[in-house]
Amino acid sequence: MSRGLRVQQDMEKERETLQSWKERVGQELDRVVAFWTEHSHDREHGGFFTCLGRDGRMYDDLKYVWLQGRQVWMYCRLYRTFERFRHAELLDSAKAGGEFLLRYARVAPPGKKCAFVLTRDGRPVKVQRTIFSECFYTMAMNELWQVTGEVRYQSEAVEMMDQIILWVREDPSGLGRPRLPGAPTAEPMAVPMMLLSLVEQLGEADQELAGKYAELGDWCARRILQHVQRDGQAVLENVSEDGQELSGCLGRHQNPGHALEAGWFLLRHSTRKGDPELRAHVIEKFLLVPFRSGWDPDHGGLFYFQDADDLCPTQLEWAMKLWWPHNEAMIAFLMGYSDSGDPALLDLFYQVAEYAFRQFRDPEYGEWFGYLNREGKVALTIKGGPFKGCFHVPRCLAMCEQMLDALLSRPAPGACTPLAVPAL
Amino acid sequence: MSRGLRVQQDMEKERETLQSWKERVGQELDRVVAFWTEHSHDREHGGFFTCLGRDGRMYDDLKYVWLQGRQVWMYCRLYRTFERFRHAELLDSAKAGGEFLLRYARVAPPGKKCAFVLTRDGRPVKVQRTIFSECFYTMAMNELWQVTGEVRYQSEAVEMMDQIILWVREDPSGLGRPRLPGAPTAEPMAVPMMLLSLVEQLGEADQELAGKYAELGDWCARRILQHVQRDGQAVLENVSEDGQELSGCLGRHQNPGHALEAGWFLLRHSTRKGDPELRAHVIEKFLLVPFRSGWDPDHGGLFYFQDADDLCPTQLEWAMKLWWPHNEAMIAFLMGYSDSGDPALLDLFYQVAEYAFRQFRDPEYGEWFGYLNREGKVALTIKGGPFKGCFHVPRCLAMCEQMLDALLSRPAPGACTPLAVPAL
Repeated sequence: MSRGLRVQQDMEKERETLQSWKERVGQELDRVVAFWTEHSHDREHGGFFTCLGRDGRMYDDLKYVWLQGRQVWMYCRLYRTFERFRHAELLDSAKAGGEFLLRYARVAPPGKKCAFVLTRDGRPVKVQRTIFSECFYTMAMNELWQVTGEVRYQSEAVEMMDQIILWVREDPSGLGRPRLPGAPTAEPMAVPMMLLSLVEQLGEADQELAGKYAELGDWCARRILQHVQRDGQAVLENVSEDGQELSGCLGRHQNPGHALEAGWFLLRHSTRKGDPELRAHVIEKFLLVPFRSGWDPDHGGLFYFQDADDLCPTQLEWAMKLWWPHNEAMIAFLMGYSDSGDPALLDLFYQVAEYAFRQFRDPEYGEWFGYLNREGKVALTIKGGPFKGCFHVPRCLAMCEQMLDALLSRPAPGACTPLAVPAL
Repeated sequence: MSRGLRVQQDMEKERETLQSWKERVGQELDRVVAFWTEHSHDREHGGFFTCLGRDGRMYDDLKYVWLQGRQVWMYCRLYRTFERFRHAELLDSAKAGGEFLLRYARVAPPGKKCAFVLTRDGRPVKVQRTIFSECFYTMAMNELWQVTGEVRYQSEAVEMMDQIILWVREDPSGLGRPRLPGAPTAEPMAVPMMLLSLVEQLGEADQELAGKYAELGDWCARRILQHVQRDGQAVLENVSEDGQELSGCLGRHQNPGHALEAGWFLLRHSTRKGDPELRAHVIEKFLLVPFRSGWDPDHGGLFYFQDADDLCPTQLEWAMKLWWPHNEAMIAFLMGYSDSGDPALLDLFYQVAEYAFRQFRDPEYGEWFGYLNREGKVALTIKGGPFKGCFHVPRCLAMCEQMLDALLSRPAPGACTPLAVPAL
């Protein structure tokens, strides 16, 4: 066989593999979305039930604000960017979820602080002293504006965003956390990550806002990059505000899935900035370093938490395999491959996707299991709960379908020309 | 063989089994106390390190106030009630721990609110909006008074106790928890349990205080008993203040080890009250019911959490086997047997103790592992951490040694005359 023929056959084989994954991912996305539309809509009060058992049956009717905002966002994105999801049920449910948030999310309007969890009919049950309920509220409102064009949604998004920025960069006192003399001024990586994704979200369809938040985006990227520590050998979840390692468990805490998620946030940032050096740095430090340390060599899958000194973490669930780090890893590696053309990243995408489809998928009832033990056995049979809703699985599948589609549309598959960032 | 001879042989065999367990338990207590005296003392600042790895090496120097108070209490109890622990090192370390608490536990003296965790040198890191730091502070101070006779310790204990009672029975606003319109007025069983154990602690060596808190003790017992729900078929961790089941996961939440601990608190209460009917009720509802539902038929050991409808709990660690429920079960069954003479309870003590000694004990470095997976494999190798210190294991071993000793001292072993409550 001539060398040219072999190369062509290899390319065709790769194309077939990409094509078959595109189909697998697309079909799975349909099944996952069907699970949530069938089981999660509260037709009486609006909003979504997320405490759903294996077969979709509701086991609690509490409404977690993170998950309300995320599902509104997800439905709008699917409606907006997938022809086959452009149907009224998705949009109407997203709008009903948005109205539920507008009416009930804030604990003491006109104050901006949102509850963490509400009763089915919208009374606040718990408030977290963090920014995340407000961030998912903002994401939801901006998407509703992008889909409907109604400016009241966009005003809500921008006003909340400005409050969040104030809390993070100027005065956190409104969050209600006491400042204690022994508490280190630790920055959890989640904060600049979350803000960076909001910067992207709000700038996506509004050039003026993109300009307004450009400096903030750079600040977020710098702050996230500060979490690369120990001569580039580790991403640490918490560092001091000036980028120093903190002492004790807090300082050594690692979350490989979170680092991988930060990785693809930064990949998109580097594409927006047109910065190939940053891209290479991010692929090495936020994709490969966390994967090398975080992938379980014995049973496969990503550990939930690790200690940078390889000591035993104190979190009981540290060795469990959670669904979302695998979703983030799939996105990160496929994006890394799309952006760089490095086939090693595509192989890692396949490795993670094979594990995830084999271990988390539920062929019987749809959606994915969320929580496996270290060995990969289902430890919790729930499909949704206080922290799992209609978000990580469909976001991953939708983004991967779009990226696979884009890869297959390239004139020469496997060629190294970086893609534009896909729409979702 | 005559019937009389057989009965006598059976009795001798039972005596031998009790005797061998007494020796096993006593030797284990020595090893466990040695672990803490060797590794946990902060000779510079006073107080105790509890973040200790398998071999006792410190992996974090934070000081958790619950665990500071518990270790002071434990050392004083051992010093006070065991001849072989009456040595200066134990008492001096307890006093140094007490001084550390007196100096640093309160976040804003003269306010009574205590921190949850302090830096090594005593600066507050986190505050919980509950009563538990203050409760363990009170236990520590009362024991220090019982050992040393210094009244300043007892004043501290009584003043803190009165503050706690005020928070629980009159006005919780000082704890800092917002009252939210959607939050159910749920009572966690931990609150009346904790108060009941403080009533016993403070009344033990002070008749006047015993009288002062007698009504409170009865109130606590009534409130704990309200957690028996569903026609007596389940102990629920959270009920409404008037004793109704709450909706959702919160209402269905069960913690078998906690129910067993409540069981032995109530057994002591029933002995103090001289109430054999209460004793029988408690043995059935707080010992046997939780054990029947909570013991894993496949792998042995007590589940950490359960759902009263047998749905999947949302806590990731629900199926793990934690050390302390097994300590509480050992105490509860041996006390139940001592009080009632029912040999089925002694068999359950043996069953739990065999499991615990086989699975949790570390013959190599001392102290027990705290966290096993469902199958019984060690999931976390730490010996101490934010919630595990010098408390449950030595309290259990010390109480079991004393109860076994008392059983062996009875004129006719196996006879049904209830024992007095042992000193510890």
